[in-house]
Amino acid sequence: MNTRRNFIKKATITAGLATVGMNSILNAQENKSASAPKIKLKENAVILFQGDSITDAGRGRGTNDYNETSNLGNRYAMLAAAKLLETYPEKKLKIYNKGVSGDKVHQLRNRWDSDCIDIKPDVLSILIGVNDFWHTLDFGYKATVKNYEDDYRALLEYTKEKLPDTQLIIGEPFGILNGGAVKDSWYPEFDKYRAVAKKMAEEFNAVFIPYQSIFDKAQKLKIESNKYWVPDGVHPSLAGAALMARTWTDLCI
Amino acid sequence: MNTRRNFIKKATITAGLATVGMNSILNAQENKSASAPKIKLKENAVILFQGDSITDAGRGRGTNDYNETSNLGNRYAMLAAAKLLETYPEKKLKIYNKGVSGDKVHQLRNRWDSDCIDIKPDVLSILIGVNDFWHTLDFGYKATVKNYEDDYRALLEYTKEKLPDTQLIIGEPFGILNGGAVKDSWYPEFDKYRAVAKKMAEEFNAVFIPYQSIFDKAQKLKIESNKYWVPDGVHPSLAGAALMARTWTDLCI
Repeated sequence: MNTRRNFIKKATITAGLATVGMNSILNAQENKSASAPKIKLKENAVILFQGDSITDAGRGRGTNDYNETSNLGNRYAMLAAAKLLETYPEKKLKIYNKGVSGDKVHQLRNRWDSDCIDIKPDVLSILIGVNDFWHTLDFGYKATVKNYEDDYRALLEYTKEKLPDTQLIIGEPFGILNGGAVKDSWYPEFDKYRAVAKKMAEEFNAVFIPYQSIFDKAQKLKIESNKYWVPDGVHPSLAGAALMARTWTDLCI
Repeated sequence: MNTRRNFIKKATITAGLATVGMNSILNAQENKSASAPKIKLKENAVILFQGDSITDAGRGRGTNDYNETSNLGNRYAMLAAAKLLETYPEKKLKIYNKGVSGDKVHQLRNRWDSDCIDIKPDVLSILIGVNDFWHTLDFGYKATVKNYEDDYRALLEYTKEKLPDTQLIIGEPFGILNGGAVKDSWYPEFDKYRAVAKKMAEEFNAVFIPYQSIFDKAQKLKIESNKYWVPDGVHPSLAGAALMARTWTDLCI
């Protein structure tokens, strides 16, 4: 195991300790993680990116087109799509982005039939949770981490019922303390949301992408500003999106 | 030398034979090519992408910002920027796109002071020429390949005078015969424009990127449609742009 993986493993375990038992974290590490089993993309695979503004990233809403920049937004989903379409031309992939800015997990559920089930993804990537917490602080949203967990589990149970063979990828919600939207007051509560996402990945046999650890590590590189990767603490820059996309596409073969 | 490089070398030589002597082509191969010397990106390097619609790709015009998706467009320049910004966070790169749809080489000259010289690029990437030919067929532009060569040389002489230390990258104009804008009537005349771009790279010690050969090779992969990489024969898809961007970024260290 190389240094980077060790770092991610340690960071993930540390972050998780507050809310879930050491055993389940270790099991998750043994089971699936960003550094473990690869996703085999089959021919004609349909890939769907779901989430909030980090995924949405200005995508067009006018059509249901796949593989088009206009519908993929301008951040990690688009960059991952570009790399996948270049690397696997023979697979005839169809890649969709249906992220919606501002969404919390219960809002995914409200549009899940049209924006997920009907698309019949072979690979479904979900990144949701930062608004479930953030909006309780700054936008008057009345909810707790238990609501997030219950809503997330219900969404995934419904997904598994309708799409039993779909490979799930669950991204860790993240925040960067750099003078932007993320404040000291986010902690330790926000860490619980991150732990829930990891727990969901474990329960539903999803590949888990530890974005928080990835950004924490990147923040330690020699960069001019602590806003390089995630300028406002929540929404990645083009560089930050490229880092997410590379992590995502590195999962695939 | 691996198979891919051999293919590119052969394809490039074949394409060039019609218009420039074998010796100069071989010298160019010995000198600089997409598979030869790498570009060392120094700290604080300014990188500028220049060209026509293939480079422009919907970039915003409102500000002079660098490294921002809004100003980088949605094709190869933006994808190359994303990869460079992710790979070299410590270098503090500033990446600009100043491509303008429809431009021919003499139109670059008209806006060169503000859109190139003033930006003082350390690395200047130019992809221009398809309109210099295409517009003589379909848009009533009165010019020949000699005008393209004269205009291109004058532009590069002016650039070398003003920016003697700038590393040049010259891209090969390309067209794909796939039922789109590129017709049989483009040949063999269009090949002469490709050869001029290569000749300019040789004369001005630029790294030459043989995009035509790269797309010709990609067209031979198992793809569903011959429009996969370059749907209209002139403007790359997201996949085609990713292929261009990877070729470009692979030049750099």
